[in-house]
Amino acid sequence: MKEDGRGSPPVPVQEALAHRKAREIEAEGEAYICFNDDFRGVPRGTAVFADCTVYGYPQIGRILALQAGLAEQFAAPFWVEEKIDGYNVRVFRRGERVLALTRGGFVCPFTTDRIGDLMDAAVFEHEPDLVVCAEVAGPDNPYLESSPPFIKRDVRLFAFDLGRLGCPGFLPQEDKHRLIEQHGLPAVPCFGRYRAADVDALQAILERLDREWREGVVFKQDRPEPRRAKYVTSTSSVLDIRATAYNILDLPPEYFINRIMRLVLFMEEQGLDSEQALADAIGEAFVGGMREAIDQFKAQHKVFRTYTCRFRTREAAQRMLVHLGRKSRQVQVNKHDLRREGDYWVLEFERVSQSMSGMLNHLLSGGVVYD
Amino acid sequence: MKEDGRGSPPVPVQEALAHRKAREIEAEGEAYICFNDDFRGVPRGTAVFADCTVYGYPQIGRILALQAGLAEQFAAPFWVEEKIDGYNVRVFRRGERVLALTRGGFVCPFTTDRIGDLMDAAVFEHEPDLVVCAEVAGPDNPYLESSPPFIKRDVRLFAFDLGRLGCPGFLPQEDKHRLIEQHGLPAVPCFGRYRAADVDALQAILERLDREWREGVVFKQDRPEPRRAKYVTSTSSVLDIRATAYNILDLPPEYFINRIMRLVLFMEEQGLDSEQALADAIGEAFVGGMREAIDQFKAQHKVFRTYTCRFRTREAAQRMLVHLGRKSRQVQVNKHDLRREGDYWVLEFERVSQSMSGMLNHLLSGGVVYD
Repeated sequence: MKEDGRGSPPVPVQEALAHRKAREIEAEGEAYICFNDDFRGVPRGTAVFADCTVYGYPQIGRILALQAGLAEQFAAPFWVEEKIDGYNVRVFRRGERVLALTRGGFVCPFTTDRIGDLMDAAVFEHEPDLVVCAEVAGPDNPYLESSPPFIKRDVRLFAFDLGRLGCPGFLPQEDKHRLIEQHGLPAVPCFGRYRAADVDALQAILERLDREWREGVVFKQDRPEPRRAKYVTSTSSVLDIRATAYNILDLPPEYFINRIMRLVLFMEEQGLDSEQALADAIGEAFVGGMREAIDQFKAQHKVFRTYTCRFRTREAAQRMLVHLGRKSRQVQVNKHDLRREGDYWVLEFERVSQSMSGMLNHLLSGGVVYD
Repeated sequence: MKEDGRGSPPVPVQEALAHRKAREIEAEGEAYICFNDDFRGVPRGTAVFADCTVYGYPQIGRILALQAGLAEQFAAPFWVEEKIDGYNVRVFRRGERVLALTRGGFVCPFTTDRIGDLMDAAVFEHEPDLVVCAEVAGPDNPYLESSPPFIKRDVRLFAFDLGRLGCPGFLPQEDKHRLIEQHGLPAVPCFGRYRAADVDALQAILERLDREWREGVVFKQDRPEPRRAKYVTSTSSVLDIRATAYNILDLPPEYFINRIMRLVLFMEEQGLDSEQALADAIGEAFVGGMREAIDQFKAQHKVFRTYTCRFRTREAAQRMLVHLGRKSRQVQVNKHDLRREGDYWVLEFERVSQSMSGMLNHLLSGGVVYD
C-alpha cells in the first residue's frame, strides 16, 4: 500500500503490480505506475507518481432509453452537460510542468505539448492540486476520425470535471462551475439543472443536438449520492459507424451492434418520423465506409486514414509517433510529413488497418474464407 | 481405431472420444458416435454406427470476389449449381429405416419423419449404401427464418451431392447426375459446366439469382483434384441480416460484418448501379429488424419468432421439440400448438431470444450499460 500523504485511501500499488493490473511507465521524462485495469476500487488510468496520485476517470454508464433511464437512475435533480466527441484527458501540474494523461493513464505528448494553446495554465498557480478532466476534440486531433461539426480546425479543450491530486472522485458541480468561471477555463456547454420529470425539455435539447450532428449529453447528480449517466443522439451513432467502417475488422464487432441498438432506441423514443432516412443513413455508413476501403485498397494496396496535427515542438511530434506506434498491433502508424508552418510543426501520418488490408488482399486475389 | 469393414481409412473413434471431439448419442432409437468437431481429417458431423459410418459434410470455402476467386481456385472446368437457402442433411438407409442427419450429426426428427414426402426412398433399394446430401428448404422448416422465395409452403428437398456409407468424399459429378436422373431424386438446379474464363456468363446467372432473391451458387471441380467454392448474391446477405436482426445479440457479431463485406464486394464486382438501393436495404434490414424486436418486446415482453412445421406422426413432433430445446441455451423453445390437420400433425412453436429479451428489458426499464 502506498500512502500519498493527503489523507485519501492508500492505493494498492504493489498488489496491482503483482496482479499485472498496473505497470511501471516512463514517458515524457516522468516515471510512474499506471493502472491498466480497474483494481480494488482504483480505476483504470490511475497514475501513481512518487509524490502524488492522479485517479483515473471512471467509466460512465449509458442509458439507451431516456425517459425510463432518467426515472431509474436519478431520484434528485441533476446537471445536464453536452458530451463532446473527443478524447478524454486529465490535466494537472507536476513541479514546473503541466501534463495531460490519456484515459489509459499515458502522458499524451500531443496534448501536453499543446496545453498552453488549449487552456490557461495559470489556474494551477492558484489551485496547484487541481486535476482538470476534459475532452479534447477537433478535426486535427491525433486519435479520432470524428470531431464535433462546430470545430472547423485544430483542436479545442472542454473541461467537464475537476478533481484534486490524491483524491478519487470529483468536486461538486457548484464548486466546479465556480472555479471554471473564476479561471476562465474552457468548458463543455451546460444546459442547466433538471429532474427526471423534465423529459420533454431534455428531449427538445437532444433533438436539437441530433439535428446539429452533435454527440449527446451527460447527466450528473451530486446529492444524495453522486450518479452519472450518458445518452447519445442517433446521428452520433451513424457518424461512428461511417467513420470506422473502413476499419470494421479491427474493432470489436459489438461496437457496431451496440450503435445500431442505440440509434433504433433513440429513434423509437424520440418518435422521429424519419425512420426511413435513418435506416438509409446507417446503410450508407456501412456500405460507403466499406466501399471506400475497397477503392483505397485497389488504388494503393492498403486501407488507411490520414491524420494531421500541430505541435509546438518537433520533439513532441516525434514522441507522439512513438506513442501512437505502441497503441495497437493491428494498426500500423506511418509518418507522411513533419514540416514547419508558422509557429508550429505540422505532423501528417497515416493509420493503416492491417487486418482490413490483409483481408481485402486475400479476398480480392481470390482467396476463400470459411465462416 | 474402428474399421468399418469397407476398405476405407479407419475412423479414430476412441481418440476422438478421449479428446472430446466426439460423443455418444442416442436419438430416434439409434445409438452412435457423433463427431462434434473436425478431428484428424474426419469432418464434424460424422456419425459412426455399429456397422457403418456416415461421413460429415465438409465445409465449403467462400469466395467474395468472383472473377479473382474462380481464377485462383479452379484450374479446370467446374460444375455450377444453385445454392439453396435451407439446412443441410445427409439421408441414408439403416436397416429398415431411412434416417436424416443434420450437419452436426444429429438424427433430425422432422426430416426423418417427413422423408417419404421429400424424396422417393426406393433409391435405397437399388443403392443401399447411398448417402444423399441435400438441402431442405421452405417456409415451414423448423430451423431457419429464411427460405427460398420460390417455395411457397411446407418444405422441399434438393440433393446436391451423393456419397457412400463408409466413404469420405463424394461421387464424381457425372455419376451423381446419372443416379439423380435414374432415380428421379429432387436436386438443386444445375447451371452447367464452366471455366474460370466464363465469368461473364456466370455473372449473368448471378445477376438473375440476385434479382430473384435467391442465395447463390456452388462451384464444383472433380478433376484433377476435387475443389469447391461458394459465392452468394447481395440480396441473400441483406435477407440474412433482416431475418436475424431481432436476434442480433445471440449471433456471433462477425455474422453481420461478414455479410456486409460480402455484399459490398458483390456490388462492387457486379457493377450494380444500385449502390444506394442496396445501402438503403441494409439499413432497413438492421433498423427494421431491431425495431420489430422492440415493438414485440413492448407488446409481449419477449422477443421471439414463431415456426410452423408439419409431421406425419405426433411422436416425431414431440421428439423435435426435445431436439430443438437441446440446441442452444440462449434460445428458449416453447410449444404453442400441436394439432391434427388432414394427414399431418402441425406443430407451432416459438424461439425466444433470451439475450435480446433480457437486454431490452434492462434497457427499456432504464438500466445502464458500460461499453
